[in-house]
This record gives sequence, structure tokens and C-alpha cells, in this order.
Amino acid sequence: MIFDLCPSPALYPFYKKENDTVVVVDVFRASATMCTILQNGAAAVIPVADIEEAKQYKLNEFLVGAERKTRKCDFADFGNSPFDYTREIVAGKEVVFTTTNGTMAIEMGRDSKHLFIGTFSNIDALVNKCMESSERIVVLCAGWNNRVNVEDTLFGGAFAERLAEKNVLSFGSDAVRIAQTLWQQAKSDPLAYLRQSEHYQRLINNGAEGDAAYCLQKNTVSVVPCYHKEDKKLRAQ
Amino acid sequence: MIFDLCPSPALYPFYKKENDTVVVVDVFRASATMCTILQNGAAAVIPVADIEEAKQYKLNEFLVGAERKTRKCDFADFGNSPFDYTREIVAGKEVVFTTTNGTMAIEMGRDSKHLFIGTFSNIDALVNKCMESSERIVVLCAGWNNRVNVEDTLFGGAFAERLAEKNVLSFGSDAVRIAQTLWQQAKSDPLAYLRQSEHYQRLINNGAEGDAAYCLQKNTVSVVPCYHKEDKKLRAQ
Repeated sequence: MIFDLCPSPALYPFYKKENDTVVVVDVFRASATMCTILQNGAAAVIPVADIEEAKQYKLNEFLVGAERKTRKCDFADFGNSPFDYTREIVAGKEVVFTTTNGTMAIEMGRDSKHLFIGTFSNIDALVNKCMESSERIVVLCAGWNNRVNVEDTLFGGAFAERLAEKNVLSFGSDAVRIAQTLWQQAKSDPLAYLRQSEHYQRLINNGAEGDAAYCLQKNTVSVVPCYHKEDKKLRAQ
Repeated sequence: MIFDLCPSPALYPFYKKENDTVVVVDVFRASATMCTILQNGAAAVIPVADIEEAKQYKLNEFLVGAERKTRKCDFADFGNSPFDYTREIVAGKEVVFTTTNGTMAIEMGRDSKHLFIGTFSNIDALVNKCMESSERIVVLCAGWNNRVNVEDTLFGGAFAERLAEKNVLSFGSDAVRIAQTLWQQAKSDPLAYLRQSEHYQRLINNGAEGDAAYCLQKNTVSVVPCYHKEDKKLRAQ
């Protein structure tokens, strides 16, 4: 089994291989939020990349989460904070979801053999899921407007460490090496390491530092959101 | 003054700003080779991205350096080893040059305010040159077929350290943070850190480990190759 990391959605065409298992990671905050929605009993998450499409769903009485530039869109029911999506509101429902970067990364990776949503919140469940049936696992970082970010790359390093503990993987790529170096530097206190990151600063400026801390906690959920090509929805696995 | 780093030529559209000073870095080996060509007295380096264009120059009796996939192209006078380009051969000449990644990165950055070629070989001269007239300096990593690599990102970290010593820069970007973390980890012995990198392995497999060691030596030359838009040539500054 091979492990690779793609640091930006715009680079995935240069990393893509047949039969990839793609793990889309958007640490701050879309991955944790999608995990929380499904952990709290939603029937599905419907990821859409486009605001107009999300508005159409809202007109058709779907629950809609929508964020741009770290803020909730006015027309939406929720923003991109995992704490918005309580069991009381989402259980049994299908939730439409669009964020600045996370849903774009899903669009890039959706032709892969498997597409999972991963982050610190579900890292152990994710590793187990990937080990079941993958030939090559690629962590696809959502980044920020196609620029690389620290937190998604950092997660790639944490994920590589977990996979190495399983002792079955080949790590070939320089991108993985970069992620591993970051994780070695940051693992004793990831939040401290990320305090100077661009997106942490944006979250602070929007009063969402509690979200940041939550998004770095490991194994707060047991679900792995899995993309179903036939109806373009994410369901818990 | 602002410093940023773009980890792949394919991402430069997402990093680009008006009036950028772009530093194209291809540590293994195009940057060091272009520096050596000009240090050894060549009148200019003519970078071309396309093999067919390089062949046309060869038919017109230019000296031509051409490499693809770490190997010298058969039709060319030189490959991509800095040791090929001795003063006896190149002094006073214009040398056409095309490599797998370095010349593609030049194509991406050529509309910038200034475009310089940089690497460990000319790092101090480069810093001084950039300090003269730059508003925003972007290290544009050549990478490998648009994938990120360790050695170019690492150079970005070394360059950031030199700039920080000048005490006049603002470092905003996560990509810079990633590069700085790599450099902190590797600076005591960059060659040891890079031994596991993808391209170092390619160089070893092609008998070019001496080139790798040379490419990591600091300040072996005093020139800064500077791109001239009017005739698309690089000349020493």
C-alpha cells in the first residue's frame, strides 16, 4: 500500500492515479463539521461547491450550511462551526453543505475509487477504514483558495504516523516527507504550533477559537463520511 | 517588504501579485547550473521550455544544454550538471538551456517585475539583490512536474532566515512557515536531510551525487542570473 499527500486541490491532477482512495482534509473546519453532522445522526451531507446551488436547496426546504471567508452566509441555517449542528436539529435530515475550500476539494477528488472525509476528529476510524480496501491513499489538502496551508499538511503528517504504526505502507513522496517534518515539530502541542497560521488568525478574528481547539482533538467522533458517487452524497460509514 | 513562497509552478497564479520580485529556485540542479554558466563568463543563458526549440538553436550553432528526467538529451552539448559548463567552453558565449522543471518555472514567473535565479550557490548575492528594489519577494519552487519537492521548499526556509537577519520583512504565508520548519529541521546537515528526497535518489541513480553536494554549498558564485524580458535572456547581475 502506498501513501501520498497532495498539498492543494489545484495540484491533484499531478498526484492522481487510478484507484486512489482520497481523504479530503480541511482541518479548519469543514472536515470536523461534516463528521459532526453525521455523528449527530444526519441521514446524509450533500456537499455543493456553489452558493447558488445551496440557495436552491434552501428554497426547497433543506437544511443548509454555508460559509464563505470564515463567515456564515446570510441565507443559510448554519455556518461552518461544528457546534451549530446539534443532534436535535440534524438527526434524520439531509444537510446541504458548502464551504470556501472543503467542498471544492471534494469536487476535485470525486472520481476516485473511494473518497472519505478525514481530520483529527475521526483519525483512528479513518485509518481503519482506509486499511480495509485501499491500494494507494492520498490525503488531499483543501488548502485556502488553492494555496497550501499548515494545518491540512500537518494532518497529513499525523495520518502518516498512524499508518506507519500499522507497518504496511510505502512512503515515496516528498510531500509526505514535508508533512512528517511538520508533524514531528508540532505534535507535542499542535494548537501552539498553529497559532501563527493564517487560518487560525482568521478564526480568532471571527471569534471561533473554540472551534479551532475542537478541530484538533483526536477521535471525538467514530464516523467516516464516505462519498457516494451515485447520488453525490456523503454518508456515515 | 513581504516575503512569500510558492511551492509549485502550477500554483503561482494563486500566489501572484503585481510587482512581484520572483526568485526561481530549482536546487537540483538547474539554478546552480545557470549560476555556474554565468559565473564562468557566458554572455547570457537563453532559457527555453521546449526541446524542439532547443534543437532549432543547436542547428543554428548555439551551445545547448538540455536535460529531461535527470539525463542529458542526446542532441545537446551539455546536460544539467554544473560541472559540464567550464569557463573554457562557455566564456563569451550565449548558452541555450532547457531542463525538466527549472525553465518551466521561469515561463510561469516571467511577467513579474524582476525575475532572478536563486539557490544556495548564490544565496548572499541574491538576498542583497532582492533587498535593492523589491516590494514583495516570492520564491517560486520549480518542483517536479508540478509536484512539490523537499529541496526547493527547504531553500525557501534558508532564504527566509537570511531575510529575517536583515530585519525588514513581513512573513505572512503558511507556505513560508512550512519552509521555515523544514529548514530548522535540516539546517545542521541539509545533505543528510535530503538523502531520502525523491530527486536526490534520482541523482544517485544517475551517478550525480557530486552534483547534489555542490548544489547545497552556499555562496560558490557571486552572480545573480536576472531575466531580461526584452530579449528573454538571463544575464549576470
